[in-house]
Amino acid sequence: MRISELSTRSGIAVPTIKFYLRETLLPAGAALSANQADYDDSHVRRLHLIRALIDVGGLSVASARAVIEAVDSEQMPLSHVFGTAQFAISQSDLYTRQPSAEAVARVAVVVEHHGWRVSEGNPGLIGAANVVDAFAGIGHPELVDLIDDYASSAESVARADLAAVGRQADVAAMAETVVAGTVLGDAMFAALRRIAQEHITQEQFPASVQPVPADSHHG
Amino acid sequence: MRISELSTRSGIAVPTIKFYLRETLLPAGAALSANQADYDDSHVRRLHLIRALIDVGGLSVASARAVIEAVDSEQMPLSHVFGTAQFAISQSDLYTRQPSAEAVARVAVVVEHHGWRVSEGNPGLIGAANVVDAFAGIGHPELVDLIDDYASSAESVARADLAAVGRQADVAAMAETVVAGTVLGDAMFAALRRIAQEHITQEQFPASVQPVPADSHHG
Repeated sequence: MRISELSTRSGIAVPTIKFYLRETLLPAGAALSANQADYDDSHVRRLHLIRALIDVGGLSVASARAVIEAVDSEQMPLSHVFGTAQFAISQSDLYTRQPSAEAVARVAVVVEHHGWRVSEGNPGLIGAANVVDAFAGIGHPELVDLIDDYASSAESVARADLAAVGRQADVAAMAETVVAGTVLGDAMFAALRRIAQEHITQEQFPASVQPVPADSHHG
Repeated sequence: MRISELSTRSGIAVPTIKFYLRETLLPAGAALSANQADYDDSHVRRLHLIRALIDVGGLSVASARAVIEAVDSEQMPLSHVFGTAQFAISQSDLYTRQPSAEAVARVAVVVEHHGWRVSEGNPGLIGAANVVDAFAGIGHPELVDLIDDYASSAESVARADLAAVGRQADVAAMAETVVAGTVLGDAMFAALRRIAQEHITQEQFPASVQPVPADSHHG
C-alpha cells in the first residue's frame, strides 16, 4: 500500500509517519520509484506499537527507538528484549534515585524469600527500595510488610505474561508481546487495582468508617 | 519545634515549607507570636506525605491538595478518601481518553466475572478499556485474555491494601494508609513485576530463544 493508505489504515497522519521513518522507528517500505514506497501490514502493526510505547508507555522517541531496535534484533535473547523494554519504561526518578541501604536490604530479603534470581541491574530493585523508603518517610513503615503480598501477585502476573509470550508463533511476535506486556501491563494492573479497591472498600467498610467526634484529634 | 527544626527533621527547605503552608497543603503551626509558630511530629509526617504524593505519585500541587483535604475530612467515608486519591492519580490520557464500546464491554465482563460492585465513575474502568484497545491496536488482541489473571492478582493486592487500612489505629491513619497505598502501591507493584519478569524469563527461556536464520521473515 502507499503511504496515504498506511495513514488511513493506521489513523496516523502522513507527516507523523514520515517523522517515524526519518527517526528509524518505522522501517522503510519497498522502493517503487524515487518518490514512492510500498508498505504492508507489518508497517500498520509497527505504527500501533510505536503509538502504544509513546502514548500509553509515555516513552520518548529515543527510548521507543531503543525498544524497537531490541524487538528487531532477532538474534538477541528474549531476556535482552525484556531488559531493554524494562529499562526504557523505568526512567523516572523512582527508578534512578539512590535508595537507602536499609531499603535495598529489605527488598533483597523479599527477592530471596521468593527465590527470584535476578541481575543487579534490574530497575525494579531500585524502584521497590525507593517505595520502601517512601513508606517509612510518611510515618507508615509497617506498610512495608505489604511487599510480600505484592511480590506474590507480581509473580502471578509475570507468569501469565511469560505464558502469553510462549504462545506466540515466532520470535518477532514474542518480542512484540514482551514489549506490549511490559509497557501496557503496568497500566492494565493499575487500572484493575482501582476497580478492585473500590469493590473491597465497600465490602469491608460497608457503611464506611463512622464519623468521629469533631473534637477528637489524631497526631 | 520551630520551622528551622521542621526543615532539618523533614529534609525539606524552609522556603518549600512556607510554600506548602501558603498553598494550605500543610496546616499552620500553633502561633507563638506574630512571626513564630510551633510545629509537631504531625507536620513532619504531613511533609513526607506531600513529597510522596508529588515526587512518587507525580501529582500536581492542586491534585495533592485535593487528596490532603480528603485525608483531613474525617467525617467523610473512607470510600470518599479512596475515590479522591484514585481520581488524583488518574489524570493521564489513559484514564481520560474515550475507549471503544467493545473495550468497555470487555472490561464489564471481567468486573462481572469477579463479582466486583463498582461505581460507573471509577477511573479504572476507562483505564483498563484503553489498554484493551491498545492491545488490539498493536495486532495482539489475544493479549486481552491476560486481563483475567491480572484481575485476580489485582484483587489479591487490593485485599492486602484494605487489610493494612483496617489495622490502623484511627481514622486519620486509615486515610493516610489509603492514600499511601494508592499512590505508592502502583509504583511498588510495577517495580516488583520487573524483578519477577526477569526471574521467570530466565526460568522459562533459560538459554533464551534460539537465533532464527537471518533470511527468515516475520510479518
